[in-house]
Amino acid sequence: MNQGLVLALDIGGTNARGEVLDARLGAPLVRADLPTPERDGEATIATIASLCRLLLAGLSDVDRSRVCAVGLAVPGIIEGPTGVVRLASNLGWSDEPVAARLSALLGLDVVLHHDVTAAGVAEHRLGAGAGASDLLAVFIGTGMAALVVAGGEVVSGGLHQAGEIGHIPVEQGGRPCPCGQTGCLEMYASARAIGRAYGALTGDPDATSLDVVTALGSDPRADSVWAEAMDWLAHGLLGPITLLSPARVVLGGGLSASGAVLVDALRSRLDVLSHVAAVPEIVTASLGQRAGVLGSGLATFDAIERRQLV
Amino acid sequence: MNQGLVLALDIGGTNARGEVLDARLGAPLVRADLPTPERDGEATIATIASLCRLLLAGLSDVDRSRVCAVGLAVPGIIEGPTGVVRLASNLGWSDEPVAARLSALLGLDVVLHHDVTAAGVAEHRLGAGAGASDLLAVFIGTGMAALVVAGGEVVSGGLHQAGEIGHIPVEQGGRPCPCGQTGCLEMYASARAIGRAYGALTGDPDATSLDVVTALGSDPRADSVWAEAMDWLAHGLLGPITLLSPARVVLGGGLSASGAVLVDALRSRLDVLSHVAAVPEIVTASLGQRAGVLGSGLATFDAIERRQLV
Repeated sequence: MNQGLVLALDIGGTNARGEVLDARLGAPLVRADLPTPERDGEATIATIASLCRLLLAGLSDVDRSRVCAVGLAVPGIIEGPTGVVRLASNLGWSDEPVAARLSALLGLDVVLHHDVTAAGVAEHRLGAGAGASDLLAVFIGTGMAALVVAGGEVVSGGLHQAGEIGHIPVEQGGRPCPCGQTGCLEMYASARAIGRAYGALTGDPDATSLDVVTALGSDPRADSVWAEAMDWLAHGLLGPITLLSPARVVLGGGLSASGAVLVDALRSRLDVLSHVAAVPEIVTASLGQRAGVLGSGLATFDAIERRQLV
Repeated sequence: MNQGLVLALDIGGTNARGEVLDARLGAPLVRADLPTPERDGEATIATIASLCRLLLAGLSDVDRSRVCAVGLAVPGIIEGPTGVVRLASNLGWSDEPVAARLSALLGLDVVLHHDVTAAGVAEHRLGAGAGASDLLAVFIGTGMAALVVAGGEVVSGGLHQAGEIGHIPVEQGGRPCPCGQTGCLEMYASARAIGRAYGALTGDPDATSLDVVTALGSDPRADSVWAEAMDWLAHGLLGPITLLSPARVVLGGGLSASGAVLVDALRSRLDVLSHVAAVPEIVTASLGQRAGVLGSGLATFDAIERRQLV
């Protein structure tokens, strides 16, 4: 086992989280968070560098000398080998050589990861997906994205864009999506879509999917919004399940905080809808908000293992 | 390279095709076809045994001694390791120990393969999918089925039912499918669905998808049936493309005989519809009706290679 340490970071649109991890990926030696600057690419680079320095400052001199790389999970399109972020609109980056710039600032190798891939890999190897070599991890929050694991391997796709489950069309000529398509699954079943649909009925522009789940059984408007969203979710996920025959579906992201309510709603619909595919086991993610950081650490140790660096 | 020969068979609902192949999988040493008995499981076993004996009879004594196994591609649900066909309704088999029975009749090891998997593997390794390690092979005939290849490996799924692309739901509460679901893609875009939709307009109960393609540009009814089917096909395939990001889509089965008309119809629609996924290369299958036999041979030599037999 690698004796080094990794600074594992997960840069979200709101918070930048960091942990110092060893190869066992247990409890962090140090952890720290900083708020992410709002769509300001330069400020985000500076914040990440500060977060790394904060993490390093928390280590003993001996442990500081063991740090061998920085892993960075980001919500954007990454050119893997070069470490360039092609587009991360929430972070204000476009064709930004993030790995090279941070590496120059910190004097450490920097490895970039897609945030959903990182979180999915963590759930697959350490969390609710452990033990399943064929699984679909679906993260449902503001948008929706997925990690497909087949035969134990992450599917990244020949065109390197696998996982965009939120943009699977579920209704021909359906609801317009900011992406330019119509009928994208995330316009019907994301946490944001559920919150908005409820807000449109109640007049509360700040309504969230949590409000809907909380009001289930007491507010018929919440019941109907939830039922409709779950109908679309089941309809949308039945396609990937029918094509890929995963043994397990792991539900993560903000909506998965609703736990059994979500799992039961989806499972009961799939049991009725599916006549061809066997319905897989459906569970919620188990690593919570640590998933991105853990996946970033995992994937960085993997990269070291493959001698891509250090 | 293995010096042996394989009797490679593809048992369709209408014809049973056979070839004697060596490990280079070039031109067959012998080939023979027999009509498949109609949904009569016992007669089908006898026909397969006859076809094997016919193939063996065509070989020299020296070559006959080189035959090391029989590969059998069948349209049904197979329990891989045991060689039992759980269900192949077109062949009249249900929980039938096909491999063991044929092996006893012929004195040769018998390896079963799913016919679409076999044809897809052949297109992937020897045909229109060669060189692409991430591809979606879609066979469109009476029904629709697919082979997914990711990272060079065939995706069979944790529940072993991957590939049922014809039963991806494309319309919530849509057209009823004999499988029991509603809105299955094959009810909109299979060769049979296209022929039936045209027949409903022309009054010809025997209308086929070939009739539609032939009448394009001269019969507005054909134009509208084709356009609607292609809209659904593009809508239905955009989901798998968006999730899996394949580099290439190979279109096989009866409908692929329409060639560029099909490829162009699908590509032009995907170019317009897709705003998130990069549109993969779209090509027609190149091995035609030999694909199943070649895939049966390939997969059988693979099994020998893995020392599963001989």
